[in-house]
Amino acid sequence: MSNDIQQMMQTLGQKARKASRELAVATTEQKNRALLSIADALLAQAETLKAENKKDLEAGKAKGLDDAMLDRLTMTDKTIAGMAEGLRQIAGLKDPIGEIEHMNYLPSGIQVGKMRVPLGVVGIIYESRPNVTIDAAALCLKSGNATVLRGGSEAYFSNHALAACIQQALKEAHLPEAAVQVVQTTDREAVGEMIAMPEYIDVIIPRGGKSLVERINQGARVPVIKHLDGICHVYIDDDANTDKAVKVAINAKTHRYGVCNAMETLLVAESRAQEVLPILAKAYAEKGVELRGCEKSRAIVEMKAATDEDWATEYLAPILSIKVVADVDEAIDHIAQYSSGHTESIITENITISRRFLAQVDSSSVMVNASTRFADGFEYGLGAEIGISTDKFHARGPVGLEGLTSQKYIVLGDGHIRQ
Amino acid sequence: MSNDIQQMMQTLGQKARKASRELAVATTEQKNRALLSIADALLAQAETLKAENKKDLEAGKAKGLDDAMLDRLTMTDKTIAGMAEGLRQIAGLKDPIGEIEHMNYLPSGIQVGKMRVPLGVVGIIYESRPNVTIDAAALCLKSGNATVLRGGSEAYFSNHALAACIQQALKEAHLPEAAVQVVQTTDREAVGEMIAMPEYIDVIIPRGGKSLVERINQGARVPVIKHLDGICHVYIDDDANTDKAVKVAINAKTHRYGVCNAMETLLVAESRAQEVLPILAKAYAEKGVELRGCEKSRAIVEMKAATDEDWATEYLAPILSIKVVADVDEAIDHIAQYSSGHTESIITENITISRRFLAQVDSSSVMVNASTRFADGFEYGLGAEIGISTDKFHARGPVGLEGLTSQKYIVLGDGHIRQ
Repeated sequence: MSNDIQQMMQTLGQKARKASRELAVATTEQKNRALLSIADALLAQAETLKAENKKDLEAGKAKGLDDAMLDRLTMTDKTIAGMAEGLRQIAGLKDPIGEIEHMNYLPSGIQVGKMRVPLGVVGIIYESRPNVTIDAAALCLKSGNATVLRGGSEAYFSNHALAACIQQALKEAHLPEAAVQVVQTTDREAVGEMIAMPEYIDVIIPRGGKSLVERINQGARVPVIKHLDGICHVYIDDDANTDKAVKVAINAKTHRYGVCNAMETLLVAESRAQEVLPILAKAYAEKGVELRGCEKSRAIVEMKAATDEDWATEYLAPILSIKVVADVDEAIDHIAQYSSGHTESIITENITISRRFLAQVDSSSVMVNASTRFADGFEYGLGAEIGISTDKFHARGPVGLEGLTSQKYIVLGDGHIRQ
Repeated sequence: MSNDIQQMMQTLGQKARKASRELAVATTEQKNRALLSIADALLAQAETLKAENKKDLEAGKAKGLDDAMLDRLTMTDKTIAGMAEGLRQIAGLKDPIGEIEHMNYLPSGIQVGKMRVPLGVVGIIYESRPNVTIDAAALCLKSGNATVLRGGSEAYFSNHALAACIQQALKEAHLPEAAVQVVQTTDREAVGEMIAMPEYIDVIIPRGGKSLVERINQGARVPVIKHLDGICHVYIDDDANTDKAVKVAINAKTHRYGVCNAMETLLVAESRAQEVLPILAKAYAEKGVELRGCEKSRAIVEMKAATDEDWATEYLAPILSIKVVADVDEAIDHIAQYSSGHTESIITENITISRRFLAQVDSSSVMVNASTRFADGFEYGLGAEIGISTDKFHARGPVGLEGLTSQKYIVLGDGHIRQ
């Protein structure tokens, strides 16, 4: 059994590697044609897709999946139309591959620059969200990468129906069918193999909760673009404008609760706490947000006491921890100690303080007078997002097409030799 | 014993992490001052350095190190002056940290760009070359990274004397002494610990032979910027200019033999073999280069038969394998199969063929009418080089200061919230 899975994954990896060579030199027109064909196929086959999805939903209900999971698993005409629209948007993006940057003449007379190239083969491991199958395949295709997709077992039938649409479109665009492959088993061993084949897979992107990402990262022998916690902070500085502070602090916490770029801890300069906290407490109370504060916060507004664990927790819920700090330096220190390095924002009118915050806070997004909720590939103008990286290596923050590429040096001479 | 080493490495890692936070916000002036002070200290302490180096040389001779190793280990007034000169050059380079790129306004009204930041803590594992201690420390310092250096045990005394010079200079520049740490043991277990502390070390760069790099890569739980083989090709195309072809093919093989960017296999278009191979064979014979060829090559010039193993071998020696190919497509296929992805060059006057070669060859450097020997950080204008990466992830090809950095997003608003 184990040998069978290993053999299957090896074969799949070999095919992906071979397809990646063809895909790397596919024209922009070919790749866009495939993307648009997938969109057409999804709409044309909506009934089949919903029927297959129904099998997954029924099995999921029988298995006792909770409502949130069933919701993410469900495919409707609307979600299918959304996938098709996403594909069209990605087809409309500029092709990153082949872009040449910084061609310069050097003292020896050679001309040196960098050309953008695909990474090769991208493995995506995700939970039971069928839309990820299409998103991930589309982004990898546009960036010239072959893809190996391993979705959650609860979306087995949905993913296979989606894969069939993709295969058909690839064929029509004269691209190798192995450019996008869906792993044909729900056996967990397949994941173990997938993350340990550096000869066939160049990078793994896990998309899902922290436990999934940690599990993948532990066992991986291939680079992983990973997204762990989002413990995001907003710091209201001495020189904050009150209106901006209130607006941003409310938006960062309450715009959506279960997202990685929501604020989890609010830091307030001591000089402003007396004024700002009562206004915020009232607004949060109206939204049903539970507050947990340090002693100084609690002396101003009634709330639960925050423990050390609160500062280190990503609530993903209508809960907010609040700390009064002496100044920007204490805010930066608190962030250095507790932040997950995702996104932090300062509210201030002072340019010196904001420059210091931008330089010293070591997070993938650092903001001035803006809501942490903006940390997102679409909001940043990337046109798409395969995930948000909390790593520093290779890709950091929202990852779009460029994060799925590398650059090679190109050198032009006229018979130049090294002296 | 094992626990002691583990404890020692953990303490060292914690100190490095702490120092990296200070170093990340050090001014350009502070970093340059430290670099220039190290240069001064090396020159001032040349006698001490040579005396400590002598201990290593004597132990090395007793241990039976070969001449090449002893040569790389030896510190003379000249090599010390070279180190000081290298430090001054690095001080003269532009500081990459804090550079802001691509600040653009987006439809929501926020302004988004990227700011260059250090990776954090860089671990360097290298063989017994004292100059690497200075090179690596200098590049990491300039790019705002803390460094943990683990040199070969044969350079123990030399490295500690160099470390003392570095520590003194850091102190003078008011930078934390833990910004550069040399591992204080020759126990191999220390390396095992070092490559398995992702909480303290952000990237490992092994500098040495392939076996060292492979060993590190196998066990690493931290990203590795690695350099494996350099099986470089030159392809002489149908449309090659004969003079350029001969000049480049001689230079790429014979300029230096033991280097990773030397040509190991020459590919020649069938239409040109009859003309070019005899000229080259004569030139190589004069330089004492042994030729090993395919059947078609051997029908033109007398030489040994090349085996399949030859195509896959990095000789690092005056040996060259030669293959006659039908055309550029067969050349590209051969390269795809046997190249290590380091550097390949085509000799041609044809722009269509050269564009195809540039697009389709998947190596860290791809060249037209230039010698593979140019694949080097200095020749590419990086000002310095910490190594050459044969990976695609994060850094590819010659790695200079920029390869030791990452970018974070910065967002400026005016109280903007997400709608």
